[in-house]
Amino acid sequence: MTLETVSENRSHGGTQGVYTHQSAETGTEMTFSVFVPEHVPGTKMPVLWYLSGLTCTHANVTEKGEFRAACAEHGIIFVAPDTSPRGDDVPDDEAYDFGKGAGFYVDATEAPWADNFRMRSYIETELPEVVAKHFPVDMARQGITGHSMGGHGALTISLRNPGRFVSTSAFSPIVSPLSCPWGEKALTGYIGADRDKWREYDACALIEDGARLTDLLVDQGKADTFLQEQLKTNLLDQACRNADMRAAIRMQEGYDHSYYFISTFMAEHIAWHAERMKR
Amino acid sequence: MTLETVSENRSHGGTQGVYTHQSAETGTEMTFSVFVPEHVPGTKMPVLWYLSGLTCTHANVTEKGEFRAACAEHGIIFVAPDTSPRGDDVPDDEAYDFGKGAGFYVDATEAPWADNFRMRSYIETELPEVVAKHFPVDMARQGITGHSMGGHGALTISLRNPGRFVSTSAFSPIVSPLSCPWGEKALTGYIGADRDKWREYDACALIEDGARLTDLLVDQGKADTFLQEQLKTNLLDQACRNADMRAAIRMQEGYDHSYYFISTFMAEHIAWHAERMKR
Repeated sequence: MTLETVSENRSHGGTQGVYTHQSAETGTEMTFSVFVPEHVPGTKMPVLWYLSGLTCTHANVTEKGEFRAACAEHGIIFVAPDTSPRGDDVPDDEAYDFGKGAGFYVDATEAPWADNFRMRSYIETELPEVVAKHFPVDMARQGITGHSMGGHGALTISLRNPGRFVSTSAFSPIVSPLSCPWGEKALTGYIGADRDKWREYDACALIEDGARLTDLLVDQGKADTFLQEQLKTNLLDQACRNADMRAAIRMQEGYDHSYYFISTFMAEHIAWHAERMKR
Repeated sequence: MTLETVSENRSHGGTQGVYTHQSAETGTEMTFSVFVPEHVPGTKMPVLWYLSGLTCTHANVTEKGEFRAACAEHGIIFVAPDTSPRGDDVPDDEAYDFGKGAGFYVDATEAPWADNFRMRSYIETELPEVVAKHFPVDMARQGITGHSMGGHGALTISLRNPGRFVSTSAFSPIVSPLSCPWGEKALTGYIGADRDKWREYDACALIEDGARLTDLLVDQGKADTFLQEQLKTNLLDQACRNADMRAAIRMQEGYDHSYYFISTFMAEHIAWHAERMKR
């Protein structure tokens, strides 16, 4: 678990770092970013995981997410992983929505993806161990969020691991890979044609099958061009209502799918997580 | 003065736009970005000009500057121009610090630069007319700021145009092109070897020669690797003291030259400008 420092920059009183390590799960070098606010040495801070969307690396949210001011204010460590394994030896697809940059937070079972595309285990198990070892995180106070494919990741990881996260939110998540072209393509490719096996990677199906969150915050732009065909926020709303699960799903007038939208509501999400991370 | 819209995205309640127009000064198409906060239709808002540094376009600060939340709060329009003319027909130099991306906010007099590299007149005269025509700006309440080469631009443009700007600030500015390698190279190339002609493009020389600002805010990172050889903040400090000109020049421990530094102090700069833009 050796960590290499790519860069560290002082920002908003803390340190924005980028790091790499050799991942046993993906068999590749993986890059992630961590913001550590200014703090009294020896203290541990809650940690917010941010999972990114299609085509993104750690860099998109690190540069455009506008999270540091709020994380500094609330004393929260912010971790942003990559969205897939990388490298010349990793299989890829020429499409933007499959292969590199499109790991979908699953453990692939199909060839040629199964060896490297193990983003579920990487995010659920390996990376938390790396982060817990190298940064002053209080692992009893974790929150998780993400955008689009990463919103799908945040919801499904939290639903499958009850009690691990004190708070869960998402920006314009893919709420049901079973019910949209992005999901059908990715899960067929990574997991195979048996749709029953997809249910653990589908937030709506997980809720239907009995998984619960104590609370949930979702922001979704109403001018998002992916809303109708891919994101289908109404399916999550319906699943939560059917399950009587508390959820604030906010449809935001005029906002699209970009970081101009995410950065607008980032500080509110962080404050919402901070409230739930209080001891 | 036709304006073409490249993109408009809702952000922080307002609109972040990117626009192009044909510039008479540079003889090229020029791109700039404008953030217009939410406002009562028909009202006009103060405008803050942000001039970028070497290698940058409008995009760097637009994506990484973290200015929109503060501009929305204070009701300030934020304009970010490019740093030079662009295009295949524009002369260039292979170095990062001369030619495209390095206009230095001068009107070049030397061949082959004189035809296109007219960033002084573009920023001082042409772009303000375009912005005043197309956006709800109150041109009686303008502020100006910038980073590095753009800090040099902000300081010298404000010093040469007394009374135009109600507020002037800078992030890690080049304070004296006469006294650093970046400046010597650029001004020799654009203006020629007669150093007397450089003085109108040197903030310290302008102050020495009698120009004044009513007030000034500068932030400079102490871990900035360009501080000693290129930026030389102490020369500006000395010029202000000699002239008895009020200036808050803040040396910030641990901060470097990057947008991680700029974004940290952006909200404070905007609040400082807003205070001075009040009617």
